[in-house]
Amino acid sequence: LDSKTGLDTSADELASAIRSGSTRALSRGMSWVEAGGDRAQALVDSLYSTAGVGEPWAHVVGITGTAGAGKSTLVAALAKEARRRGISVGILAVDPSSPFTGGAILGDRVRMSELSGDPGVYIRSMAARGELGGLCQAASGGIDLLRAAGKQLVLVETVGVGQDEVDIMRVAHTTVLVSVPGLGDDVQMLKAGLFEIADIHVVNKADREGAGETISQIQAMLALNANHDARWQTPVLPVIALRGEGVAALLDAIAAHAQHLRDTGELGIRERRMAEARVIKLAQTMIADSLRRHPDAQTTSQQDLDRVARRELSPYVCARTLLERLRA
Amino acid sequence: LDSKTGLDTSADELASAIRSGSTRALSRGMSWVEAGGDRAQALVDSLYSTAGVGEPWAHVVGITGTAGAGKSTLVAALAKEARRRGISVGILAVDPSSPFTGGAILGDRVRMSELSGDPGVYIRSMAARGELGGLCQAASGGIDLLRAAGKQLVLVETVGVGQDEVDIMRVAHTTVLVSVPGLGDDVQMLKAGLFEIADIHVVNKADREGAGETISQIQAMLALNANHDARWQTPVLPVIALRGEGVAALLDAIAAHAQHLRDTGELGIRERRMAEARVIKLAQTMIADSLRRHPDAQTTSQQDLDRVARRELSPYVCARTLLERLRA
Repeated sequence: LDSKTGLDTSADELASAIRSGSTRALSRGMSWVEAGGDRAQALVDSLYSTAGVGEPWAHVVGITGTAGAGKSTLVAALAKEARRRGISVGILAVDPSSPFTGGAILGDRVRMSELSGDPGVYIRSMAARGELGGLCQAASGGIDLLRAAGKQLVLVETVGVGQDEVDIMRVAHTTVLVSVPGLGDDVQMLKAGLFEIADIHVVNKADREGAGETISQIQAMLALNANHDARWQTPVLPVIALRGEGVAALLDAIAAHAQHLRDTGELGIRERRMAEARVIKLAQTMIADSLRRHPDAQTTSQQDLDRVARRELSPYVCARTLLERLRA
Repeated sequence: LDSKTGLDTSADELASAIRSGSTRALSRGMSWVEAGGDRAQALVDSLYSTAGVGEPWAHVVGITGTAGAGKSTLVAALAKEARRRGISVGILAVDPSSPFTGGAILGDRVRMSELSGDPGVYIRSMAARGELGGLCQAASGGIDLLRAAGKQLVLVETVGVGQDEVDIMRVAHTTVLVSVPGLGDDVQMLKAGLFEIADIHVVNKADREGAGETISQIQAMLALNANHDARWQTPVLPVIALRGEGVAALLDAIAAHAQHLRDTGELGIRERRMAEARVIKLAQTMIADSLRRHPDAQTTSQQDLDRVARRELSPYVCARTLLERLRA
């Protein structure tokens, strides 16, 4: 590959340094993956096979929920509890709603700084780039890196809203949905199919008024909806992340869910589904690239797009024709 | 096409009824388009060429902004002003953040009900379905239908947040970004590249404290950033949508932007960009479908995906192989 020549570090060298535990190499790899392109591909190609579900634990937990739910505080508390148990932790904070590393993430990084002296914890933020697809791929690559670096527990926090979150949560083995009492409960829970994909519900700030009601509401909704995994009883856990209360029980529930995934064979099913979603997204990105860069892109395809713009050709017919041409 | 036989109404018949102005046919077409699939394709294929930028006006305006900015009230006020000028109006309210037709949209539909007796106004909501791509395509199809039905002004309102909105706004000729005073101004403006794509800024609820500051802030940011269309001076308009104040000036600004797009040739450039984005999205959806339904989907491709899930094969290599196979 071109990306392996003419550079100070090759993808294989960097992959090897990441596997051997170099934090510096991990950070550099994260930058490659975030930038995308050939170097990101070469790096993931090189370490993907060693970024497996190893023993004792290489588990990816997605943590999402409404703004103001205290997700970052919860992530920091979970990381501290995991460290207390001797589990190494990688944290990836993904913000699809902002092209900048936003206020929430930066502010909460400060709160996490007490973790930052611990070599067993690695923290990285990723903000939105050009396309959501790019961010999803960067996040998937970032998770590969953390797993290859031997992090046993990978926590992926998203602060986005809507379909973005659902897409990003597809990279997780276990999804934790965080609610808070009295924040327009119906609204925060009904969002974008998030409720359905939750494996564990957390009601944070559980010392606030209305916490009991929020828990009851979630339980009632769980009773109404068929679980996406019929063999798993979705727990609803009260937590006060700021004081660390309920955090040990949450980590226990995550461990129980990981065990459940393994015992039932659901782990393999999820890994398969994650692989399919990722490959299809990659293939789609490659299609868009190749349509734009195709040899005849300056001629036939461009003329077809002109005709669509002038309303002489339907976009469906044009899309079918473009694909036919690619296949020919 | 299969979809044209064995149904009570063919796509061509429905397209013809929509063109002749039947509201009933338009609503039925909207349901087809929202459901997607072969019928949606056949309908769009049939009426796409008659859904052009006609005279005097077939202009698509995207209206977006933070929650609580009063977008729906603004849309209703704009529609009323347009009707006063004898312009027919189609309204499409798109909510990517909820799989349900959510509270905000339903609540504001009530406020719009004074418009509902007017045959010159057509109002339709679309909520999130399985995939964002599907909603974008449904919205594009819905706009085609409204244009084919002869609506001169099409208002597309989104209540989503983040990348969703940016994607949906790609269907508009003119994008209006709505802010309000004192709602954490920095946050609402810096979101997800929305600021950059705005052709017109509105500060709604301009009788509130801090309105002047919000307007100044937006003007300062506009001065700092290069405009995405160097020949257009982006206006910042104070509006009180609830009382109709400033709404006539907003419609004037929209008309001026439409004229600007025509005079400078930017209209053709935008139509072309919209066509390309739409065709690429369609082609990507078709790729995903064909990977799932491909003749050898049960064999080679599935085995490759299994290997990705077992971490024996990199997702990039798998995606490239799948595309090679499609092309072979």
